[in-house]
Amino acid sequence: MTSNFFFKKKNIKIKDIYQIDFKNNFIINDIKPLDKAKHKDVSFFDSIKYKNIAIKTHAGVCITTEKLKAFLPKNTEKIIVKNVLFELANLLKKIYPKADIDYPDLSLKKFNQKQYKKVKFGNNVLVGKNVKIGDNTIIGANTIIEHDVLIGKNCVIGSNVIIKNARIGKNVVIQDNCKIGQKGFGFIPIKDKNIKFPHIGSVVIDDEVEIATGCTIDRGSIDNTSIGKNTYLDNQVHIAHNVKIGSNCMIAGQVGFAGSSVVGNNVSIGGQAGVSGHLKIGDNVKIGGGSGVVKDIQDNQIVMGYPAVSLKDFLKKNKNE
Amino acid sequence: MTSNFFFKKKNIKIKDIYQIDFKNNFIINDIKPLDKAKHKDVSFFDSIKYKNIAIKTHAGVCITTEKLKAFLPKNTEKIIVKNVLFELANLLKKIYPKADIDYPDLSLKKFNQKQYKKVKFGNNVLVGKNVKIGDNTIIGANTIIEHDVLIGKNCVIGSNVIIKNARIGKNVVIQDNCKIGQKGFGFIPIKDKNIKFPHIGSVVIDDEVEIATGCTIDRGSIDNTSIGKNTYLDNQVHIAHNVKIGSNCMIAGQVGFAGSSVVGNNVSIGGQAGVSGHLKIGDNVKIGGGSGVVKDIQDNQIVMGYPAVSLKDFLKKNKNE
Amino acid sequence: MTSNFFFKKKNIKIKDIYQIDFKNNFIINDIKPLDKAKHKDVSFFDSIKYKNIAIKTHAGVCITTEKLKAFLPKNTEKIIVKNVLFELANLLKKIYPKADIDYPDLSLKKFNQKQYKKVKFGNNVLVGKNVKIGDNTIIGANTIIEHDVLIGKNCVIGSNVIIKNARIGKNVVIQDNCKIGQKGFGFIPIKDKNIKFPHIGSVVIDDEVEIATGCTIDRGSIDNTSIGKNTYLDNQVHIAHNVKIGSNCMIAGQVGFAGSSVVGNNVSIGGQAGVSGHLKIGDNVKIGGGSGVVKDIQDNQIVMGYPAVSLKDFLKKNKNE
Repeated sequence: MTSNFFFKKKNIKIKDIYQIDFKNNFIINDIKPLDKAKHKDVSFFDSIKYKNIAIKTHAGVCITTEKLKAFLPKNTEKIIVKNVLFELANLLKKIYPKADIDYPDLSLKKFNQKQYKKVKFGNNVLVGKNVKIGDNTIIGANTIIEHDVLIGKNCVIGSNVIIKNARIGKNVVIQDNCKIGQKGFGFIPIKDKNIKFPHIGSVVIDDEVEIATGCTIDRGSIDNTSIGKNTYLDNQVHIAHNVKIGSNCMIAGQVGFAGSSVVGNNVSIGGQAGVSGHLKIGDNVKIGGGSGVVKDIQDNQIVMGYPAVSLKDFLKKNKNE
Repeated sequence: MTSNFFFKKKNIKIKDIYQIDFKNNFIINDIKPLDKAKHKDVSFFDSIKYKNIAIKTHAGVCITTEKLKAFLPKNTEKIIVKNVLFELANLLKKIYPKADIDYPDLSLKKFNQKQYKKVKFGNNVLVGKNVKIGDNTIIGANTIIEHDVLIGKNCVIGSNVIIKNARIGKNVVIQDNCKIGQKGFGFIPIKDKNIKFPHIGSVVIDDEVEIATGCTIDRGSIDNTSIGKNTYLDNQVHIAHNVKIGSNCMIAGQVGFAGSSVVGNNVSIGGQAGVSGHLKIGDNVKIGGGSGVVKDIQDNQIVMGYPAVSLKDFLKKNKNE
Repeated sequence: MTSNFFFKKKNIKIKDIYQIDFKNNFIINDIKPLDKAKHKDVSFFDSIKYKNIAIKTHAGVCITTEKLKAFLPKNTEKIIVKNVLFELANLLKKIYPKADIDYPDLSLKKFNQKQYKKVKFGNNVLVGKNVKIGDNTIIGANTIIEHDVLIGKNCVIGSNVIIKNARIGKNVVIQDNCKIGQKGFGFIPIKDKNIKFPHIGSVVIDDEVEIATGCTIDRGSIDNTSIGKNTYLDNQVHIAHNVKIGSNCMIAGQVGFAGSSVVGNNVSIGGQAGVSGHLKIGDNVKIGGGSGVVKDIQDNQIVMGYPAVSLKDFLKKNKNE
């Protein structure tokens, strides 16, 4: 499914951008992560961490480095650069020129009850173009739903919520003041004027999810940010771009995720814990409150501390002293 | 005082719900914590931690376990179950069928200056039914005060604030974007569809309290969440359900409380500290910034670290290394 | 530049307030920090930490203690007290009687496109008196800009933002739900009724800054809170009063600063780190995620942990155990 959340330039051919001797000069379909890219998409490969995915990619073209290029399939054309993310940002900016800043949706209009006959609205709800809202959903006062957002049936959305660039399942509860779908914290540092990394992903929230008051969930950069079925978030949780959380998780208040981590199913995380970027947390993991997770965690582990270690080691460490 | 924040089914008799051989078949008055329950109330007792309160309860009926039942008075009828909170959630759902989700108040109307002659309102303030606001109180723009909320006199409520299920004293300052009275993070985990725990408590804020920008204060589940006189909260503090904070406390930015802890008077807590659930923090306690408190703290202690230990031990530990 | 954000009593002479045998009885121009005070200003000096600034002050009058007075220049009249901040609060309250509480701006009106011809507004934007907004700036729905705020050109301000007591440069991006310019967490603790410390400073945000969703930036108490050019803040960051952050910094999600710290240029701070009050963080410093910084940090250091130590020591400590 192609995102329609961002303005996209059409009919740009790969050779319009890269003056390299490619076999084919196809029209770029989209920019996709390695595992989702097809032969008319451009992808990127910037870390050895993702070599097992790189080996199997179907991307037509991939931006990568001299060092990493050998992992990519023969059929994938390589664009060799020093800084993959810098080149990717440039490419994204050419195709999606409006995705690098969160421009407020100026198409918003006060909700029209005739258009959404089976939705209950509070006062002053603002709705963008092409928004779809399922039957029996209730939306609280002063909430903003930007263009093209999809919300399933039987949802309860609180007051003062802002949702953009998101697809939300059914029976989802989102409490007051949550902000969902904004741009993540991604940029290429340049003195006096950073390059803002365009974010073309979205937020996908599955059925039965509950998100408490004041959470922020950033949209993905290239891929999506996602929250699995029946996962519950407490107040003031921060979920950065590209994070994927499984189903049946419980995430307590003020927990924070840096970008691109993947969390399994049935994971519980105590209050104020932090999870660093690009980690893999297995299924059935328990992370103690206040922990700082900086390494991958295998299935069924209980960890605690900063940096987080197994509960056994944590208790031993704090007993001996 | 019985809460009128939630729709309650009337005239439900105890034997309509429990087919047990009770002496009396009274109409259930309410569901209350052990210390507040009277002989027509149902209470619950799920942890040995509360045995001293259980011994003295006046509850007519109490949901408890085989193990704990012996602590309850003879006059209290026992409903013996394996999972007390699960049974309690079922009972709450029968009597308060709307308290398990934060349904936005659809009775909100733009403030009516005639109705609140001595209150100053900013633009677009929305007020629910039966809201009472004291004289000389000022309320900023876009703020929402849901039905039945009480606010005392001489308060200053900022912009973009949402208050529901709350009683607020006089001379209270609540800065912009605070969210007060929403449902806490309580549910019975069930694969693919958790049972949401109905929250029928409220938030009680005493006189002279100041709450800075962006705080979230959840209402109690059965009991109330409360903040004592002249206690000050800094920005982005998170207070979970049932927490009771004493008077003259100072709580710095981004501090978080898990549910049901009780904090004494004259307590100061440094920024980003976390307090686990069901703890008792004494009077005149000082908790260092960034600490993680996981045990009860006696009066007059100074603690720091994660897990928090006495300041002396913390300094020793960090010197030796 | 004198702040015009707060109502100020005019023509108050120094001897109207202090019955001390001063050489001159000048009209108080303003209350200023030591380094900015001129000969008709009153300043304050309450900590040996600031002795090098005190030596060079041009303040006409300075509130200080018996112990510290010797550091002040001969030409500065001294007001000797036991509690400098208590006396300062009293003085501020006399000259700025409205700066101790965040009274919502009741002069707000729905934006007037005719007045701001080259600004694009979302729905229901509220603007106070004397607000200046640069050309091509875009402001999202439900945002509040209070009186006298200055916003430069080419800025993008999200929805649900509140800005007060602030001057913002050009090309600045502020995402949804940020709260900028509110009163900091400053008060003199008094049993049952604290004295609220008036905050007469503002927030100054330089060009090219980006602030992500849900941040809170308090205004300065006497001095300003400031954020340097091209510095980027992630979601849910909390910046307390008087903090000064340099240029080209990156501050990740949920980081918190206590008051009055000074951060250099090119500093990067990982998620959920905390920085205590009144510290000096040098240039090019890197602070690991989750760290608790309680001491000054020299230029070019990498630190981590709680309390934060050099990365080398942190790794050693966590290896040995």
